[in-house]
Amino acid sequence: MALKVLDNSLALTDKKLIYNERVILSENEKSPLAFLGYGDQNMNMQGSNYSFEDKLTSKLPLVIGSITELEDAYNINLTFENTNHLELKCYLDNEGRLIVEPHILKKGNWNRLWLRIVADSEEKIYGCGEQLTYLNLRKHVFPIWTSNTGVGRNKKKLVTMQADLEENAGGDYYTTSFPQATFISSHKYYCHIDDYSFVTFDFTNEQFHELLFWSVPKRLIFETSTTYKRLLGKMTKLLGRQNVLPSWTDNGIILGLTGGIKRVQQVEKKLKAGGVNIAAILCHDVNEKSQEKYSNLAETIQQWNKEDMKYLGYITPYIAKNSPNYLKLSGKQMFVKNKEGKDYTVLISHQQFVLIDLTNPMAFMWLKDEIKNKLLAIGASGWIADGGENLPADGIVFENKQAFELHNYWPVLWAKCNLQAIEETRKEAEIVYFMKAGSAQSAYYSPVLWQGMQSVDWSQDDGLASAICATLSSGMSGMGISQSDIGGNLSSYGNMRTAELLARWTEFACFSPFMRMQETNRPAVNFQAYDNNIAIEHLAKFSNIFKDLSRYRQEVIKQVTLEGLPAMRPLFIEYEKDEEAYKQRYEYLFGTDLLIAPVYRAGKKEWQVYLPDDNWIHIWSGRKYKTGYHTISAQIGEIPVFYRAYSKFSEQFEKIGNQYSKGWIQ
Amino acid sequence: MALKVLDNSLALTDKKLIYNERVILSENEKSPLAFLGYGDQNMNMQGSNYSFEDKLTSKLPLVIGSITELEDAYNINLTFENTNHLELKCYLDNEGRLIVEPHILKKGNWNRLWLRIVADSEEKIYGCGEQLTYLNLRKHVFPIWTSNTGVGRNKKKLVTMQADLEENAGGDYYTTSFPQATFISSHKYYCHIDDYSFVTFDFTNEQFHELLFWSVPKRLIFETSTTYKRLLGKMTKLLGRQNVLPSWTDNGIILGLTGGIKRVQQVEKKLKAGGVNIAAILCHDVNEKSQEKYSNLAETIQQWNKEDMKYLGYITPYIAKNSPNYLKLSGKQMFVKNKEGKDYTVLISHQQFVLIDLTNPMAFMWLKDEIKNKLLAIGASGWIADGGENLPADGIVFENKQAFELHNYWPVLWAKCNLQAIEETRKEAEIVYFMKAGSAQSAYYSPVLWQGMQSVDWSQDDGLASAICATLSSGMSGMGISQSDIGGNLSSYGNMRTAELLARWTEFACFSPFMRMQETNRPAVNFQAYDNNIAIEHLAKFSNIFKDLSRYRQEVIKQVTLEGLPAMRPLFIEYEKDEEAYKQRYEYLFGTDLLIAPVYRAGKKEWQVYLPDDNWIHIWSGRKYKTGYHTISAQIGEIPVFYRAYSKFSEQFEKIGNQYSKGWIQ
Repeated sequence: MALKVLDNSLALTDKKLIYNERVILSENEKSPLAFLGYGDQNMNMQGSNYSFEDKLTSKLPLVIGSITELEDAYNINLTFENTNHLELKCYLDNEGRLIVEPHILKKGNWNRLWLRIVADSEEKIYGCGEQLTYLNLRKHVFPIWTSNTGVGRNKKKLVTMQADLEENAGGDYYTTSFPQATFISSHKYYCHIDDYSFVTFDFTNEQFHELLFWSVPKRLIFETSTTYKRLLGKMTKLLGRQNVLPSWTDNGIILGLTGGIKRVQQVEKKLKAGGVNIAAILCHDVNEKSQEKYSNLAETIQQWNKEDMKYLGYITPYIAKNSPNYLKLSGKQMFVKNKEGKDYTVLISHQQFVLIDLTNPMAFMWLKDEIKNKLLAIGASGWIADGGENLPADGIVFENKQAFELHNYWPVLWAKCNLQAIEETRKEAEIVYFMKAGSAQSAYYSPVLWQGMQSVDWSQDDGLASAICATLSSGMSGMGISQSDIGGNLSSYGNMRTAELLARWTEFACFSPFMRMQETNRPAVNFQAYDNNIAIEHLAKFSNIFKDLSRYRQEVIKQVTLEGLPAMRPLFIEYEKDEEAYKQRYEYLFGTDLLIAPVYRAGKKEWQVYLPDDNWIHIWSGRKYKTGYHTISAQIGEIPVFYRAYSKFSEQFEKIGNQYSKGWIQ
Repeated sequence: MALKVLDNSLALTDKKLIYNERVILSENEKSPLAFLGYGDQNMNMQGSNYSFEDKLTSKLPLVIGSITELEDAYNINLTFENTNHLELKCYLDNEGRLIVEPHILKKGNWNRLWLRIVADSEEKIYGCGEQLTYLNLRKHVFPIWTSNTGVGRNKKKLVTMQADLEENAGGDYYTTSFPQATFISSHKYYCHIDDYSFVTFDFTNEQFHELLFWSVPKRLIFETSTTYKRLLGKMTKLLGRQNVLPSWTDNGIILGLTGGIKRVQQVEKKLKAGGVNIAAILCHDVNEKSQEKYSNLAETIQQWNKEDMKYLGYITPYIAKNSPNYLKLSGKQMFVKNKEGKDYTVLISHQQFVLIDLTNPMAFMWLKDEIKNKLLAIGASGWIADGGENLPADGIVFENKQAFELHNYWPVLWAKCNLQAIEETRKEAEIVYFMKAGSAQSAYYSPVLWQGMQSVDWSQDDGLASAICATLSSGMSGMGISQSDIGGNLSSYGNMRTAELLARWTEFACFSPFMRMQETNRPAVNFQAYDNNIAIEHLAKFSNIFKDLSRYRQEVIKQVTLEGLPAMRPLFIEYEKDEEAYKQRYEYLFGTDLLIAPVYRAGKKEWQVYLPDDNWIHIWSGRKYKTGYHTISAQIGEIPVFYRAYSKFSEQFEKIGNQYSKGWIQ
C-alpha cells in the first residue's frame, strides 16, 4: 500500500493509521481492525444494580479492503470476505483532534461493533470515569454503564455474596455510578467516545484495546499532547470543567446529621464546643415523614447562616409511589413508563419509586421547581443530588429515544436540571451539590463528584483505599473535584465502622477539596466522631488544618477550573519519567506541592512512602527527604504528608506542621 | 423450493428436513439453521472443577443457499452473504437412522459450530447423561464436560460459595461426572452427537434447540420410534448396554467402611448381629499408608467369602506424586504431560497427583496390571473405579490427539481398562465396579454408574432429591443401572447427616439395583447406621426387603440388558399419554410393577403421591388405589411404594408388605 499522508499529523501507511506519531489503528493477520455483529441483550435490573447478558448471533471480523484518500479525510473500507461492510472516516477537526467516524456500508441487522486500538505491552491506561478498584486499567474489562457502586465489590467476599443474594447489590470491580467512555494512554493520548450508549473497554490484550459498542457510536475522538497535564487540559476543554467552589466551603467540615433539628443541634454544639470547624450541616432525612422534627428548619437555617454555617439538603429525580407528589403528577406523562404504558416502578431500599421523566420538558421543569421550592427557597446552600443511575434499559421516555441509549446520559440530564435551577435563581457562586452519578459533561454541570456509599472498612474494593483510587481515576477522567464520605457510609452484614477508620479517613479528606462526614446507614451501631473526646479532638485538629489550607486549596481548585488538572493527582502526572511514580496507586499530590500517602490499613504506626525526585519536607517532623522509599512514622493524627521545599506555600505548610504536629492525639 | 423426498422416512421440502414426520432442521427469517465461527477458549481447572470462557472472534449466521439431491443423501449448502460455507450431508444409515454430517466448505479458521434443531414450546427434553438438578432439560443450558458434580451445586447457596472460594468446587446445576451428548425429545426421537468434544446444549429457546460445538463434530445421529421404550431400546443398541449383575449383589447391602480390618469387622459384626444382610464390605482406604491396618486383608477376604460376603476395593487412574509407583514409572512417558513436557500435576484434596496416560498402551497395560495385582489377585469382587474427570484440556498425551477433545472420552478409556482387566482374568460374571465418571459407551464398559458424592442433605441441588433426578436422567441416557451412596457422602462446611436422612435414603436405595452405604468424608461427626439400635433395625428391615426382591430385581435388570430400559424409570415411560406423569420428577417406577415415591424432605409423616392410570396396591397397607393424587401415610420405615395389582410378582409384593409393614420402626 502506498504511503499516504494527509497532513503532518495524520498518515495512513502500510495499513496503519498514524496520528501525531502514535499508531492508533492497524491490522495484522492475527488481529482484524474491527468486527461487526448482532447480539440479543438481556439486561437485568434490580434497583440500580444491573447484570448484562449478550447472545451473539453474528460477529464478522473485518479487514482493510481499500483506503480512499479524500481532500480532508481517509476513508478506510473494511471488508468481510471481500465485501465492504464498514467505513471508518478518519479526519482532523479544527482543533487538530483525530475523529474516527464509523459508517455501516452493508445493510443488515447490526447492533454490535468492535474496534481495536493499537496497544503495546508496556502501555498503561487511566480513566473510564470513577473507577474504585483499579487506577491503571490494563488487564481488565470495563463496561460503561452507570449503576450502584456495589457492596463489597468483590465476588470472592462474603459481604458481596450476601448483597448479591439480597438484591444483586454486591457489585464488582468495575461497578460505578460514574463511568465515562474516555481513557488516557501512557502514550499520551486520550480516546473519548462521543456517545452515551453502552460500551465495554477491554484492556486485557497486550496488542490492542478492544472497544465493544452495543450500538454504532457517532464518533471516537483522539487527541495527543507532550505531557499528561497538557493532555488533561485538552481533554477537559472538550468535555467541560468544574467551576470554583463557594468560599464558605473553606470554613470546615460538612457534617451529615439526621434525626430532626433538636438532635442535629445537640451534636453540632457538642462538636463545635470541642473545637470542630463546621462549614455546613447536611440533613438528608428532611421529607414528608420527618416534617414535624424539622418544622422550624427555615428559621434554623437563618440562625445557622448568621453563625457562618450553611445548610445542605437532599433530593433525587425519583419520587415514592403513592406519595402526595406522585398522586399530583400522575397521568401527566411525568414518569418513565414501562412497555405496558404503566409507570415504571423501581425498588430502592425496599420502597417503590417512579422516575421523573427528564426528557419531558414539563417534568424537567417540575423537578427544577422542586429544587427551587424545597431547597433554595428555604435557604439551602447545597444538597446531595442523589440518584440518576436508575433509567431502566427497557423504559419508555417522552422523547423519541431508546432508554437503553439514554441510560448513561440520564445523570448528566439530572445534573443539568440542578444547574439550571441555580442559574435561574442566580446563585451559582453560593451553591454546591454533590452528585455520585455522572458521565462525560458532568464536569460542566456538577460542581462536585460524590463518590457514593463506600463500605465502612479499609478495603481496596470498597473501603478507604477504594476512595483514594476513585479520586485519582475520576481526576484522570476530567472530574477534578471529588469527595468521599469520611469513614465510609455503608455498614452491611455486620461490617462496622471503627474509631481508627474514621480517624484515618478524616486525615485523608483533610487534604482534598472537601471534608464531608455522614453517620452511615446505621448511625446507632457505627462509631461516630462525637462518640468520645479523643475523636472530637482529632476531628477538630483536621478541620483546623483544612481551614488553614484554604488559600492553598483555592489555588489548587483554580487549576481544576483553568487548566483541567485534578485537585488530587497521581504522582506520575507531575513526575512523568519516574517509573516508580506509576506504581503508587494510593499516594497522591494535592495540587503540585503537597504529597499525601494516606494510611489505608488498620493498626499501622509506620507507613512506607515513595517520594519522586524533588526536595520534600515531612510536614509534622520538618525532616527533609529526597526521592525513594522511606518508612515514616504515621501514628493516628499524623498522616504522611510532605510539601515541596520550594513551594511558594512552604512557609504556611511549615507553620501548619509546627502547630499541629505534637500534643494532639498520641 | 421443489418437494424432495429421498425415501419414505426422509424428505426435504420448503427448507425443512423431515425425518419420520418430525421436522428436524428448518430455517426462517428470524432463525438461521447454523452458525460458523471462531473462539478463543479459556479453560480453568482446579482439581476436577472447571470453568470455561470463550472469546468469540467470529460468528456467521448461515442460511440455506442450495440443496443437492444425491442418490442416497441430501446436501444442504449453507451460505453467508451468498458464499457457501458449510455443507450438511443428511442421509439414512443401514438401520434407518438419520445421519447429519457437517463439512466445512469455506476454508478458514473455524472452531465453533452452532446447529439449531427444530423445537416447539410444548416439547420436553431428557437425558444429557447424569443430570442431578433437572429431569426435563427445557429452559436450561447444559455444557457437556465431565467434572466433579460440585458441592451444593447452587450458586445462591452459602455452601456452594464457600466451596467455590476454596477450590472452585461448588459446582452448578449442570456439573456432573457423567455428561453425555445425547438427548431424547418428547417428540420421540433421540439425538446423539457421535463425538466426545465439548458441546453445549441450549434448550432455552421455544423454537429451537441450539447445539454449540467447540470443534466440528463427526456426525449427529437421530432415530425415532413410536414409544419411549422402543426408542430407548434403539438408542442403547447404538450406544451399548450394561450387563446383568453378579448374583452375590442380591445378598444385601454393600457396606463402605474404613479404618483397618479390626474396626471394619467390629462394625460388620454389630450390624450382622442386628439382622442386617451384608453382601460386601468396601474399603476405600487400603493403600500404602494403611498397610499395617490391613496386613491380613487377603486372608480376611477368604474368610468373608466363606461367610458369603464379598470384598470390594478402590482404585483411580492417577497416582500420588512421589509415591513408590510414581518413582518407578517416572521418565517412561507413563503420565500426562503439561506444555513444558513435565508431568502434569493435579491437586486433589490438597495432594498432588499425576495422571496415568491412558493413550499410551504401556501405561494402559500397567494400570490394568494394577487392577489385577492389587485387587483381583487378593480376591476383590469389585471396586470403586474413581476419577476419570481429570484430563486437563491443555494436557499433552502420548497419542497424537488434543487432550481437549479427549477429556470427555477419558472416563470411557478408564472404564475400558477396568473391563479388560476382568475379561483377561475371565471374571466378568463375578465382578462389579462403580464408576462415577463416564459418557457415551460407558454403558458397555462399566456395569454400574455411581452417582458420586452427594451432600448429606435433602436438597434438590445436591442431596437425596438430586440422587433421584440423577437416576432418572441417566436412565434416559442409556445408563440403566446406577446407585447413589445411601445417606449422601459429602459433609462440608457444617452440613451434617441426620438419622432421618440416612433412613429415608436407605428406603429409596432398597428399590434400586444396589444398596451401597458410605460413612461420608467425615465419619466421626456424621450419623452412621451403626450408631443406635433403631437405625440398625431400620437398615436390617430394608436389607431384608432388598434381598426378598431379588427375583423381581433380576427381571428388572434383564430389561436393562435386553431392552435398554432403565431399571428406575420416570412414570411417563410407561404411561406416555398421562400429562401428569411428566410432572413427577421425584417418583419412579422400579421395573414396570413397582412405583416408588421417595420421601425427600425432613419431618414428613405423610407424602403426596401421583399414581398413573392402573390398579395400584399400597405395599404396606394393602389398600387399593386408582389414578390421581393421593396423600399417603409415610412414616419413617414406610416409604410410599405401590405395586401393580396385575403384576406377575404381586403375590411376592403382598408377602413383603405383610411381613414388613408393622412392628418395625414407628
